[in-house]
Amino acid sequence: MNKKHKKTQYTLAELINGLDASIKGDPDCVVTGVGTIQHAKAGDIAFLMNPLYKKYLPDTQASAVILTEKESADCPVNAIISRDPYYTYAKIAAYFDEKPLPKPGIHPSAIIGEDCQIDPTASIGASCVIGNKVSIGAHVVLGPNCSLSDQIEIGENTLLDANVTIYHQVKIGRNVEISSGAVIGGDGFGLAKHKGVWQKIPQLGGVVIADDVEIGANCTIDRGAIENTVIERGVKLDNLVQVGHNVRIGESTAIAGCVGISGSTVIGKNCLVGGAAGFAGHLTIADDVVITGATEVTKSIREPGIYSSGVGGLVTNLEWRKNSARVHRLQQLVDRVKALEYALEELTERK
Amino acid sequence: MNKKHKKTQYTLAELINGLDASIKGDPDCVVTGVGTIQHAKAGDIAFLMNPLYKKYLPDTQASAVILTEKESADCPVNAIISRDPYYTYAKIAAYFDEKPLPKPGIHPSAIIGEDCQIDPTASIGASCVIGNKVSIGAHVVLGPNCSLSDQIEIGENTLLDANVTIYHQVKIGRNVEISSGAVIGGDGFGLAKHKGVWQKIPQLGGVVIADDVEIGANCTIDRGAIENTVIERGVKLDNLVQVGHNVRIGESTAIAGCVGISGSTVIGKNCLVGGAAGFAGHLTIADDVVITGATEVTKSIREPGIYSSGVGGLVTNLEWRKNSARVHRLQQLVDRVKALEYALEELTERK
Amino acid sequence: MNKKHKKTQYTLAELINGLDASIKGDPDCVVTGVGTIQHAKAGDIAFLMNPLYKKYLPDTQASAVILTEKESADCPVNAIISRDPYYTYAKIAAYFDEKPLPKPGIHPSAIIGEDCQIDPTASIGASCVIGNKVSIGAHVVLGPNCSLSDQIEIGENTLLDANVTIYHQVKIGRNVEISSGAVIGGDGFGLAKHKGVWQKIPQLGGVVIADDVEIGANCTIDRGAIENTVIERGVKLDNLVQVGHNVRIGESTAIAGCVGISGSTVIGKNCLVGGAAGFAGHLTIADDVVITGATEVTKSIREPGIYSSGVGGLVTNLEWRKNSARVHRLQQLVDRVKALEYALEELTERK
Repeated sequence: MNKKHKKTQYTLAELINGLDASIKGDPDCVVTGVGTIQHAKAGDIAFLMNPLYKKYLPDTQASAVILTEKESADCPVNAIISRDPYYTYAKIAAYFDEKPLPKPGIHPSAIIGEDCQIDPTASIGASCVIGNKVSIGAHVVLGPNCSLSDQIEIGENTLLDANVTIYHQVKIGRNVEISSGAVIGGDGFGLAKHKGVWQKIPQLGGVVIADDVEIGANCTIDRGAIENTVIERGVKLDNLVQVGHNVRIGESTAIAGCVGISGSTVIGKNCLVGGAAGFAGHLTIADDVVITGATEVTKSIREPGIYSSGVGGLVTNLEWRKNSARVHRLQQLVDRVKALEYALEELTERK
Repeated sequence: MNKKHKKTQYTLAELINGLDASIKGDPDCVVTGVGTIQHAKAGDIAFLMNPLYKKYLPDTQASAVILTEKESADCPVNAIISRDPYYTYAKIAAYFDEKPLPKPGIHPSAIIGEDCQIDPTASIGASCVIGNKVSIGAHVVLGPNCSLSDQIEIGENTLLDANVTIYHQVKIGRNVEISSGAVIGGDGFGLAKHKGVWQKIPQLGGVVIADDVEIGANCTIDRGAIENTVIERGVKLDNLVQVGHNVRIGESTAIAGCVGISGSTVIGKNCLVGGAAGFAGHLTIADDVVITGATEVTKSIREPGIYSSGVGGLVTNLEWRKNSARVHRLQQLVDRVKALEYALEELTERK
Repeated sequence: MNKKHKKTQYTLAELINGLDASIKGDPDCVVTGVGTIQHAKAGDIAFLMNPLYKKYLPDTQASAVILTEKESADCPVNAIISRDPYYTYAKIAAYFDEKPLPKPGIHPSAIIGEDCQIDPTASIGASCVIGNKVSIGAHVVLGPNCSLSDQIEIGENTLLDANVTIYHQVKIGRNVEISSGAVIGGDGFGLAKHKGVWQKIPQLGGVVIADDVEIGANCTIDRGAIENTVIERGVKLDNLVQVGHNVRIGESTAIAGCVGISGSTVIGKNCLVGGAAGFAGHLTIADDVVITGATEVTKSIREPGIYSSGVGGLVTNLEWRKNSARVHRLQQLVDRVKALEYALEELTERK
């Protein structure tokens, strides 16, 4: 979160201050916002990363474009030259982020429990309810209507958007961002059937979320059964991701929306998981693994690489019905091939 | 939302007032509620649309049944004749909807920011928290515990159920209904890896939701990265739908539950998307496309039609294991067929 | 929820009081918490159920281990002997559950409607908003920020965690647990297309949740269209489960995370549904059915058994592309086999 005092316009020289980038053109050119290379208007800064968009460069109306030295030859306007234009864009775009930054202090409508330590620079939003023995670090922001139970720790600079729920004994690091509707520390799905009736297994572990983690809207991260569920440093979760009890997600792994991870699965570092993928429980996934979207991960993965499951390919529903029927009749085809092999062998021998 | 003053009973004549329907039987018959054709009791009105339920018509205990002229011949009770019985039912059922309609006004426990324009006919529920520069139109209803950030516009007659979260700079049209737990305008999943560490791309676009849209419970609709995420007029989203940044969903498209739409995908008008389908990012889907349930849409669709992916068909787990193994051994089958072709050719040539 | 007064330590004799279990070792051994058999420290009690973990038994640092008579021979520490160690663990672990138990009474910041009956032993959390004619039984706990509409009944001992939303006319039984972010009773997805425009079908049914049900975080359970949506006794839902209108889930059925159940589907008793499975609408599923993870249930199931769909098996993305291509070319293979059969027949006849 960018705490610096915001202006509404910046010169190119100001924008690249501190960045590994240079200006080709007018350093005093004034920028008032961002735009896409094809739709930007005067005053906007755009960036070029995807070669598919290069065709828009000659006609761009942007006041400046962030791009590589090589692409800058074709840039009709001011250029910011960077070896990593997307990264440079990320840093520059932060100047134009209008996400409201609430003032420090505790809103009078917030309800705070006993024995809490709330840093005076933290901002606790309206109608937040905070339990007992909660520790909230410097520059933390809690949006309105957040619910925090007891014995929670939140590290400095962490941001909870409106309406986040944190159960007891959850520990959240620094520079973490949690989007609205996320629920951290609910009971894991632990059940034992006894005499035909489900018996709940008490979920006594907590959740530990390391620094620099992002958690998307309406994600659910369950507390551990005995030990903790752990989200390591720099992990990024998109929206509606389900993380079961005692899962561990390794450093800098990024997981797209609608993914479900069953209990006790351990995912390595620097993995990429596509949307709507699912993980069975008790698996171990190596570092540097890529799981494509909608893949069902049903066994552990020991080697880095790209993995998928099922049968892919979008077709017409008619073709799909035929494909499906063919798969369901595969044994017949195998039998016919076997019969052919037998008949041919007979024929050959008879000769 | 039906703002008309509610009674607890209506005559058939009152119920069809203004509708393209007629009564066969007693127009003064009193109706006090709705029922299914098979379970309705005296005082209920039922409807017949699905031919599977026609068998229940002769014995129905309903006081009246909404059906077509043709089916009315077999109706043993009062009939409301309509060319579109389901639509006529929809209009009539609205009289019996007991969803509470709160009174206009701002609940004293609500927290309202600065420079807001809240129409006096709007109802702001208890414990709502509203930011600065928010504009709320006539007859809008916000259920309790809603969280609205800054610079939000909500058009007239729009309904937010309890516990909806709206981020800053979201624009919502008229006659929109948003169910509880929905989160509109959270950050899109924009990341750039720089020196091995994920760098967040600021999400500076907003969300624009046109008139007559419905958004189900616990849906998540992300704000755009630069330009807006757009939900066009009359779009209907079931529960737990994830809409990524810069997605555009075309007019009157209906999307069933648990669907995920990755960033920058554009879906056409009048599409139907089955439950748990998923869309990769940056795709373009034509108008009038039907996507069947659980389909993975991995490429753009240029023509109207029905589309599916993968291999369908529910079977026993044993058969499934066999099918799966056969698919994984398909290359062996291909090789055996190739060997047969070769052997046969040899045999034929030798003759 | 365990209402008994909590201590921080217990002797083994105290822990097995009332249970069908016995002690081998020191009944006065003091236990202060739980641990896994491999990581437990002095003072912890552990359990052994999964044979994979038996290797850790000889070196366990636990003060006591819950296990079967047979396994107890190899137990180097105090043993609690049970025929069902996991169940015995569940009962014992409840002594160490530190989930905060709020005091009875209505928090002064809660907003309560008219004509409500709230048992004096119930606890209504901070910032809860409760509508009119709501009945809340003995020892019920509502966490903070819950939103309840009108005409809701909640049976005794039921627990709603923070930030649960209940729509009007929902009936919840006894000993139910609902996790944060769950939304019960939102409108079902009922639409009729009339002159090219979606018309909403009013959703007039309610939701009935029987005793001993558990509902996970961010689940959505829609109200019925005319009759009720019904969750029978002892049903257990993991997180992010979507239950459509007029669904009925039978007694003691357990459903893992991210499952979607379309409208009017009836699931039998004692079923197990794996994560991310999906059900089409209007299906009937027999009792004692097991649905494996990610299965698409597209037709009714009449017999108990284990069912799956599609093609399973995690492979490398390269192998997956080849598999997928082979499936899409299956007709060619069928044609080649047919040609071989024809050629061979010709050859045989010619001889």
